Amino acid sequence: MTGSNAQRVAVYRHEHFNAAHRIHNPALSDADNVRIYGKCNNPNYHGHNYELTVRVCGSVDPQIGYVMDLGVLSATIKQYVLDRLDHKNLNLDVPEFADVNPTAENIAIVVHGLLRPHVPANLDLHVVLGETPRNIVQYPADIVHHA
Amino acid sequence: MTGSNAQRVAVYRHEHFNAAHRIHNPALSDADNVRIYGKCNNPNYHGHNYELTVRVCGSVDPQIGYVMDLGVLSATIKQYVLDRLDHKNLNLDVPEFADVNPTAENIAIVVHGLLRPHVPANLDLHVVLGETPRNIVQYPADIVHHA
Amino acid sequence: MTGSNAQRVAVYRHEHFNAAHRIHNPALSDADNVRIYGKCNNPNYHGHNYELTVRVCGSVDPQIGYVMDLGVLSATIKQYVLDRLDHKNLNLDVPEFADVNPTAENIAIVVHGLLRPHVPANLDLHVVLGETPRNIVQYPADIVHHA
Amino acid sequence: MTGSNAQRVAVYRHEHFNAAHRIHNPALSDADNVRIYGKCNNPNYHGHNYELTVRVCGSVDPQIGYVMDLGVLSATIKQYVLDRLDHKNLNLDVPEFADVNPTAENIAIVVHGLLRPHVPANLDLHVVLGETPRNIVQYPADIVHHA
Amino acid sequence: MTGSNAQRVAVYRHEHFNAAHRIHNPALSDADNVRIYGKCNNPNYHGHNYELTVRVCGSVDPQIGYVMDLGVLSATIKQYVLDRLDHKNLNLDVPEFADVNPTAENIAIVVHGLLRPHVPANLDLHVVLGETPRNIVQYPADIVHHA
Amino acid sequence: MTGSNAQRVAVYRHEHFNAAHRIHNPALSDADNVRIYGKCNNPNYHGHNYELTVRVCGSVDPQIGYVMDLGVLSATIKQYVLDRLDHKNLNLDVPEFADVNPTAENIAIVVHGLLRPHVPANLDLHVVLGETPRNIVQYPADIVHHA
Repeated sequence: MTGSNAQRVAVYRHEHFNAAHRIHNPALSDADNVRIYGKCNNPNYHGHNYELTVRVCGSVDPQIGYVMDLGVLSATIKQYVLDRLDHKNLNLDVPEFADVNPTAENIAIVVHGLLRPHVPANLDLHVVLGETPRNIVQYPADIVHHA
Repeated sequence: MTGSNAQRVAVYRHEHFNAAHRIHNPALSDADNVRIYGKCNNPNYHGHNYELTVRVCGSVDPQIGYVMDLGVLSATIKQYVLDRLDHKNLNLDVPEFADVNPTAENIAIVVHGLLRPHVPANLDLHVVLGETPRNIVQYPADIVHHA
Repeated sequence: MTGSNAQRVAVYRHEHFNAAHRIHNPALSDADNVRIYGKCNNPNYHGHNYELTVRVCGSVDPQIGYVMDLGVLSATIKQYVLDRLDHKNLNLDVPEFADVNPTAENIAIVVHGLLRPHVPANLDLHVVLGETPRNIVQYPADIVHHA
Repeated sequence: MTGSNAQRVAVYRHEHFNAAHRIHNPALSDADNVRIYGKCNNPNYHGHNYELTVRVCGSVDPQIGYVMDLGVLSATIKQYVLDRLDHKNLNLDVPEFADVNPTAENIAIVVHGLLRPHVPANLDLHVVLGETPRNIVQYPADIVHHA
Repeated sequence: MTGSNAQRVAVYRHEHFNAAHRIHNPALSDADNVRIYGKCNNPNYHGHNYELTVRVCGSVDPQIGYVMDLGVLSATIKQYVLDRLDHKNLNLDVPEFADVNPTAENIAIVVHGLLRPHVPANLDLHVVLGETPRNIVQYPADIVHHA
Repeated sequence: MTGSNAQRVAVYRHEHFNAAHRIHNPALSDADNVRIYGKCNNPNYHGHNYELTVRVCGSVDPQIGYVMDLGVLSATIKQYVLDRLDHKNLNLDVPEFADVNPTAENIAIVVHGLLRPHVPANLDLHVVLGETPRNIVQYPADIVHHA
């Protein structure tokens, strides 16, 4: 059985989680926090359905036909990301945000850091995080031009 | 200009808001709250992007061609619902939930109550609320035949 | 082969078309047209991707297993609706709007009128028309409560 | 805690499953099967991602705030529908279709029959099944689906 | 507060606008315009709901936690793009298309040109434009590795 | 008419097809096939609605304003991909999978191979294939997909 052994393919897995957060930097004054973050600085928190897409990229295994079993990737995301973030208050319940402001950008970076040790090192890893249907972030940002 | 004067049409307007909440009934024991509501009972709150659809039903105005101006409906939803609920903690920041457990069912009922006085009384009003892409509620539940 | 002969089922077919239009009632003054319709009254037209859902409801044919062949319904919609409205200026190119203001409500009523003679008379027919992802109309408006 | 005790609310849960099928009625000739069902009659089967929405309608429990726990509803759908239909060949692997042609209409009726005994009898039950993004069926028919 | 100071992240903001247009090149004969552009050449115009995604890419501000405030980006898109294109006839009402054929490709290039002076110069800018749910364009086309 | 002659733009066309398949490698033991592929190895096949996005990238033709006519691209996809794969059993009906295991990765590579000879050679070509709404693959890998 042949046909895929040298080709690099990207695979994407979509997951989601629900969490509360507050955008707040304690190094700034309260007035600056309100000015910069507006209603996202509400002291009692607000929340989102975060739509998470994880992209893994590498060569297709010629015997198996997978870059990576998406069931395994889904279970990995569940164990290392969803079980820590889903139905949580990011500021209060998640140690990774003890000193990190939970903006969408920083959540994507944290999620990437949680997953990186558990995805095979020979595979590229990207995280896309939708905070609302209209606001989406991606980390890392740049993908090599294939030219 | 003719063509629409006796016909009943339903119009729908989609909006959304983001909020934190905790499902909790203080009349139940803490153990019962955990048993019944599971992770939705997390004491530090979690949150959602609530997708709100408002349905208004009535006769098309024969001169204007509208059941109700959807721009006016959108502004009404903004003033009476979004400005009160968006980027808020439903349990702590919204008086309507002081004695009402903010399940999706109860949020839909509260939203209907907030809008009903501000939509013309001759128009039917229904609320559909998506708490997640997979969990949706509708109030009132049944569409009655107008005959 | 049995299992479906007395049961009423609704089937839905999604289609779409792109058209230009202007909301304007010549029986009103220009000032009233602008006041009522705002930017939708732009004299040079604007346009939409109209998302059309046609709902047909009746008994499942016990031998065939269909309420109505959705391929036939799709072809019917194409012949009687899409071929007349798609990539057209509703005000200028479509005779049905010569004396009807092309609001979403009236377009739904016109589409229903175009389809009704070509869908078997024993089947109920409803039209849902999305003018934008946030503005949707339905005609007829009411569905019988099944109680 | 009050606010919801007499009000009827509908709740919806979305799930999906993947299956192969062939539309074929052995009581018809092969020529009639091809003429009526076209490429859906392909003898080696084809398949779909079926998008399943289950709607349950009843009074909100005044103490709990739920019509029915959507987590319980999801588990019920998994046990009685998904575990039987997901990643299966409907014609060959699912006994309910031994004598029922697996059209979308009949699948919706079968799914309704699988769920009905396991949803509390005082709650109304409707099934909406998307066979493709453009072809959707609903059983029973008499309430309009708010997609 | 630390955690993001050297990392490049891409942020995306979704917006939409509705417009009429006609694909037509006056340098070509009428016959060639019809042959090349088909029904998109309809002289009375047709229209679309354009789905616009703007991608901005750069380093996360270590103090603020943002690449760029998405509220500011949204306001920028509104001021320089939506206020000029929404509910307009691109050919007649928008000076940028006086000598540019409003194909989706050219609209994306024009939108990029309208936004580029108003997005900080140290941030990369890409535009994705959906003309219909099935036809989408992106400019610039290639994401260059920042190394 | 000017404005686009040196600029590279990417254009995307969405299509879909429905097919049955079984993930199975005859070079592996039956036990290994079950262990590796789980329910995707069901001997009677299962199926999917495959969502196909084809991305073509090149310079905008300065006279025409297109990278490539998306109607032509749609017809090319229909002729060389959909007519071969839609409503088929990939394992049994499609010669390209006689010796290739129809994982999503391999289907994307095969679709790319079917299209490549029929898209102008000066245009880049990428294929994105959604097997379910949550599992998506892309070939070649090195450009990020803007979903």
